[in-house]
Amino acid sequence: MRTTNPASPPRTLLLTPGPLTTSDATRRALGRDWGSRDADFIALTGRLRDRLLAIGGGTGTHETVLLAGSGTMAVEAALQTLLPRDGRALVLVNGAYGRRMAEMLRRLGRDHAVREWAEDETVDPGELDRLLAADGAITDVLLVHCETTSGILNPLEALAATVHRHRRRLLVDAMSSFGALPIEAGAWGLSAVMASSNKGLEGVPGIGFVLCERTHLAACAGNASSLSLDLHDQAKGFAANGQWRFTPPVQVAAALDAALDQLDAEGGVAARGARYARLHALLVDGMAAYGFETYLPRDVQAPIIVTFKDPGPPFAFGAFYDALAAEGIVLYPGKLTRAPSFRIGCIGAIDEADMRRALEAIGRHLGR
Amino acid sequence: MRTTNPASPPRTLLLTPGPLTTSDATRRALGRDWGSRDADFIALTGRLRDRLLAIGGGTGTHETVLLAGSGTMAVEAALQTLLPRDGRALVLVNGAYGRRMAEMLRRLGRDHAVREWAEDETVDPGELDRLLAADGAITDVLLVHCETTSGILNPLEALAATVHRHRRRLLVDAMSSFGALPIEAGAWGLSAVMASSNKGLEGVPGIGFVLCERTHLAACAGNASSLSLDLHDQAKGFAANGQWRFTPPVQVAAALDAALDQLDAEGGVAARGARYARLHALLVDGMAAYGFETYLPRDVQAPIIVTFKDPGPPFAFGAFYDALAAEGIVLYPGKLTRAPSFRIGCIGAIDEADMRRALEAIGRHLGR
Repeated sequence: MRTTNPASPPRTLLLTPGPLTTSDATRRALGRDWGSRDADFIALTGRLRDRLLAIGGGTGTHETVLLAGSGTMAVEAALQTLLPRDGRALVLVNGAYGRRMAEMLRRLGRDHAVREWAEDETVDPGELDRLLAADGAITDVLLVHCETTSGILNPLEALAATVHRHRRRLLVDAMSSFGALPIEAGAWGLSAVMASSNKGLEGVPGIGFVLCERTHLAACAGNASSLSLDLHDQAKGFAANGQWRFTPPVQVAAALDAALDQLDAEGGVAARGARYARLHALLVDGMAAYGFETYLPRDVQAPIIVTFKDPGPPFAFGAFYDALAAEGIVLYPGKLTRAPSFRIGCIGAIDEADMRRALEAIGRHLGR
Repeated sequence: MRTTNPASPPRTLLLTPGPLTTSDATRRALGRDWGSRDADFIALTGRLRDRLLAIGGGTGTHETVLLAGSGTMAVEAALQTLLPRDGRALVLVNGAYGRRMAEMLRRLGRDHAVREWAEDETVDPGELDRLLAADGAITDVLLVHCETTSGILNPLEALAATVHRHRRRLLVDAMSSFGALPIEAGAWGLSAVMASSNKGLEGVPGIGFVLCERTHLAACAGNASSLSLDLHDQAKGFAANGQWRFTPPVQVAAALDAALDQLDAEGGVAARGARYARLHALLVDGMAAYGFETYLPRDVQAPIIVTFKDPGPPFAFGAFYDALAAEGIVLYPGKLTRAPSFRIGCIGAIDEADMRRALEAIGRHLGR
């Protein structure tokens, strides 16, 4: 997975929800210039669009619309473009990223309802079924697959089946799960899947993308009030000449292409998910041995990022964070609205030896 | 400026409006991972914001709001955020980028007027004076400094003085001029200056930014209908903890910081502008020797990108482009609405030897 010079200091481990640790090969791919309208880069763009489609199970039914920017921009672009102006959305919320989608709709002045669960509860297909039965005006349902607020995994396939039964559309923020957990955009009938370059795909940050159901996207001209976030027009650009409408982050795109080579070499999404599951087990068991409890029960926890309860004094997260950061091991603060907590990610171009190194350092700073 | 391995093939020259040729040092700075909420990256972000402010003459009066994404997103973010909902904009157009701003306003449903000049005419301060005198409802004027459609340079300082005299605000798309030509955001009383990482600053693409007049920005809460393009909220994030609201392209930011080191080492904006002027003179004289005429008269041409008239058969731009691209020399198609043309840029991390290499290759493919 990586080449290490034995004489060099241990590399930085970003145990966060992203940006993540990337491989040397991925970062090496950043090292050249590209003309964004030149044939080489057009070919790279086409390759990326096809590969992302295959990873998300959308070949034949969907198309990949790439966007320069953060994952949040890709989420907003999907909401701006794919929700009909006269539609009504239902936002399923169990964390900050679901709430953010509701806030986007409020600002855009789009009609919507919000159903909120506690941050340690998964979104419930039975309740969704009742909500859709009760409100026939709802056209689109919005869901976060893995809420990195807590690290909880929502039951996407069951929720998609419920939405499908009611003949509504489902848009999924798969930011932290894409590439790591199975997503079948076509088979599960997802209207859109939003993700980014720098999570489970292990590229560097700078590109967001949306797998859009083709037939629906074609009907979405003029929905977006934002010119630069209009996925319909962006897709038209790719279809016309294979080019991005506006200047793309060419080096970031090349790094993503290299990262996808490594995903293939690893054995695809199943193998990557299995590695993350091993790292997750190592992390949770190791932290349990030091007395740390997870916020979530194991059966709803995604193998992406884990929220640990802050045990209180004498433990102080600030000092703990700083001590580990000084060794090149970067953790993440908590984001729960209620309990004090902190988070440790188990994704990125890292292996078991890296996670053991992190756990040893953690033990040392706890005086174990 | 660059280290060259004498055994390596000649590097790619991107003679385009961007992405541009970057230096080895800039691309080397892409080579590490950064935690986006870690102290090192927060320090880098603060340094970038201060340096960009100094380059644009906004220290003390303005603040830099960075945004992941393309320059177009930064332009739209400025329009979304800085134009009051009940304001009226006047868009001064002499090319595609001015027209694009008008299209953004149309989509956003913001009241605006458009005054259009031919693509080979500069925006006229006298006419602007009459327009502002005649329409007291106009609150904000929008201008493109250097229109890369043709390569024309609009008289920014004179136009700013006119806007100032009428006590309106001026927002300037300085995408291709920032870092290469003098801009004094404070002294000229500019409300906003929009630019990006990958033009005259010679970074890689992936970051747009806006220098915003502080007192005005503070009054712009809630103007933007887009959450992710809201510069007011983005600035609040930087002020609160020095962090980007959403995942930043960390490697692109590090490369921009390295590129600014090189701008300092070169002698700042004046020295960079002088180098581009030398490259421009070399280019225009060299092309004239081959019989190519420029579209614009020299006195309105910016030393950024030059539009050449397509002389017609037997010259064929497609074949000419392909032959040069095969040698690693990338030109750019024309974008004029009227005359057939092509463009050659004279910006980026290139020197006189590079331009001579390009001109020699051009001569060879013309059979000279």
